Amino acid sequence: MPSLGIVAPQTMHFAEPLQLASGASINDYTLVYETYGTLNADRSNAILICHALNASHHVAGVYEGVDGSKNFGWWDNMVGPGKPVDTDRFFVIGVNNLGSCFGSTGPMHINPATGKPYGADFPVVTVEDWVHAQALLADRLGIEQFAAVMGGSLGGMQALSWSLLFPHRLRHCIVIASTPKLSAQNIAFNDVARQAILTDPDFHGGDFYAHGVVPKRGLRVARMVGHITYLSDDSMAEKFGRELRNGNYQFGFGIDFEIESYLRYQGDKFSEYFDANTYLLITKALDYFDPARDYGDDLTKALARTQAQFLLVSFTTDWRFSPERSREIVQALVNNKRKVSYAEIAAPHGHDAFLLEDPRYMNTVRAYYNGIARELLRRAA
Amino acid sequence: MPSLGIVAPQTMHFAEPLQLASGASINDYTLVYETYGTLNADRSNAILICHALNASHHVAGVYEGVDGSKNFGWWDNMVGPGKPVDTDRFFVIGVNNLGSCFGSTGPMHINPATGKPYGADFPVVTVEDWVHAQALLADRLGIEQFAAVMGGSLGGMQALSWSLLFPHRLRHCIVIASTPKLSAQNIAFNDVARQAILTDPDFHGGDFYAHGVVPKRGLRVARMVGHITYLSDDSMAEKFGRELRNGNYQFGFGIDFEIESYLRYQGDKFSEYFDANTYLLITKALDYFDPARDYGDDLTKALARTQAQFLLVSFTTDWRFSPERSREIVQALVNNKRKVSYAEIAAPHGHDAFLLEDPRYMNTVRAYYNGIARELLRRAA
Repeated sequence: MPSLGIVAPQTMHFAEPLQLASGASINDYTLVYETYGTLNADRSNAILICHALNASHHVAGVYEGVDGSKNFGWWDNMVGPGKPVDTDRFFVIGVNNLGSCFGSTGPMHINPATGKPYGADFPVVTVEDWVHAQALLADRLGIEQFAAVMGGSLGGMQALSWSLLFPHRLRHCIVIASTPKLSAQNIAFNDVARQAILTDPDFHGGDFYAHGVVPKRGLRVARMVGHITYLSDDSMAEKFGRELRNGNYQFGFGIDFEIESYLRYQGDKFSEYFDANTYLLITKALDYFDPARDYGDDLTKALARTQAQFLLVSFTTDWRFSPERSREIVQALVNNKRKVSYAEIAAPHGHDAFLLEDPRYMNTVRAYYNGIARELLRRAA
Repeated sequence: MPSLGIVAPQTMHFAEPLQLASGASINDYTLVYETYGTLNADRSNAILICHALNASHHVAGVYEGVDGSKNFGWWDNMVGPGKPVDTDRFFVIGVNNLGSCFGSTGPMHINPATGKPYGADFPVVTVEDWVHAQALLADRLGIEQFAAVMGGSLGGMQALSWSLLFPHRLRHCIVIASTPKLSAQNIAFNDVARQAILTDPDFHGGDFYAHGVVPKRGLRVARMVGHITYLSDDSMAEKFGRELRNGNYQFGFGIDFEIESYLRYQGDKFSEYFDANTYLLITKALDYFDPARDYGDDLTKALARTQAQFLLVSFTTDWRFSPERSREIVQALVNNKRKVSYAEIAAPHGHDAFLLEDPRYMNTVRAYYNGIARELLRRAA
């Protein structure tokens, strides 16, 4: 399947302050985004893709490195010409969220109020804050209503939030491998990761930029523990099992098992490129997402405002956001008599399945988008 | 139910070197142990209790603190007069393993070869090494054959190992909430914990004693991640859910949720009393346990040497060592035509259930020990 080829990020600057859920505001910020495909004449074929923890606006296509290396978008298997989200038919936008370390204004950028990097002063942002910022970007791009807003995991929370904050600005809401709120166990894993970062002596209370260091130890442990929750027990068993690096026990604390080598490598790599303050911010956004909270924990009441049609997808071996969590959303939508499609994919890969190639999964999304495309044709007729 | 009352630890010194699986040896070591009840005339009523990660020889009864505080044994609900392991009928031994930080020779003790604390030089010990040391203690106590060897989790691995290394020295083997070997996911969690400790700047390559510091940050994160795996998702949800400490989101990185408060407290407490080198050693012993390894991963072949009768117990919500893992052991024993009782207890508490009061669990163990007691009467008749 061909990719989009070479793509390039764009930037949009906002001078007006963005009021945040915390009561704070961000002044003078920039959002980085990419677009693929062509916006049609009546501006009805726009799709917004929301990203999860360590992803960005670079959804599809490729950046070519100066060294000839290729950096494909994180959902390049999903978005592109002829792909499930077909850029020959849809105008697709990927946008980097506030607080990220991939281009949009974040903790490593200069705080106009102080002339120094935000660091620990970057305000805590919520899923709803991100959605408000995304809506302002849509305004600038002249998109009144999205054909669909779509995301997986934390991206799915943003899609769901769109259906609540701007019910009339999306016709379809596609929520993959997500949850209406984090469980105590989910929060616990996030807090372990945060504590690893916060207690790293190189964190310097979030102002490590000024010290010329990076809290790599904390980021590394945070990523390792996070990564375990993205994989299923079974897929880890199949991929690594108890395979030994050197055939025998080493009787030391170096690497014995391949799974140790893999996880440490993932942790090392992550600590080279990810920002520690961003990690803290994004895990907090995850923890805080809970649209039923203002409705006495009644998700049906919370979702009464929605107007969109929904596709939900979950994966059987996802123990981070299990199918039960998706079914709660489905049930609450059904209770509100919304149109909902739901697919529970028997996939072995755990939470990560939402990023991977699986024919049943891809075909489910493709079929749903074919329906959206038929609607577009009817609108045009 | 009355406890044993005040108990006191004893020590046994061993001058002869203990040969270890790694090829190294420990010279001149001490084992700390406790005994409860009375050894009968034919020395046939001895029970050995093996401990898990953060426990010790202090299985039951109480130490009274100088401040009047009481420190009950970790299995005081299981072992005592009239309890499932009835000290009115059995002579029960709890022994602290080598490498521990609770009294038996460990990394914080003086290495006779250097005159300084072992630190990183304490040899990596295996479950089998511990069992060999326990057998030497049994020799000294004049116990040729145990009525039963029993343990939960890592303690269950020791019990299983007894049945393999000394098939004729135990009549019953009681393995609770255990596994024939760790999965890749189990090892992954252990390695995250180890990496948190090893990369703590206060660890000093294991020789932190000389620096007058303790790698508390690493120990704290290690314990937090471990603790999550001991609890079930459901029990965490029931006990903490998304309950907030102060009613509202704080929009910072202090404590928002009760689960965060609980976990950090557990981590803090643990880092005050547990030794970092011991944590590394014990997680390695867990990772290395794999009796089928020398038998082409054929557990049935590995367990062919066993002579004991078995009781296995697992808990439905234990996702650390799930019932499936216990069933593998049961199946391998059945394949060898061994007598096996197996109870799968529907308990909500996850892996920790093996330490908790649950009538079905307690009654299962009690009934099994009643059978052992009847055997003793028949032997005496």
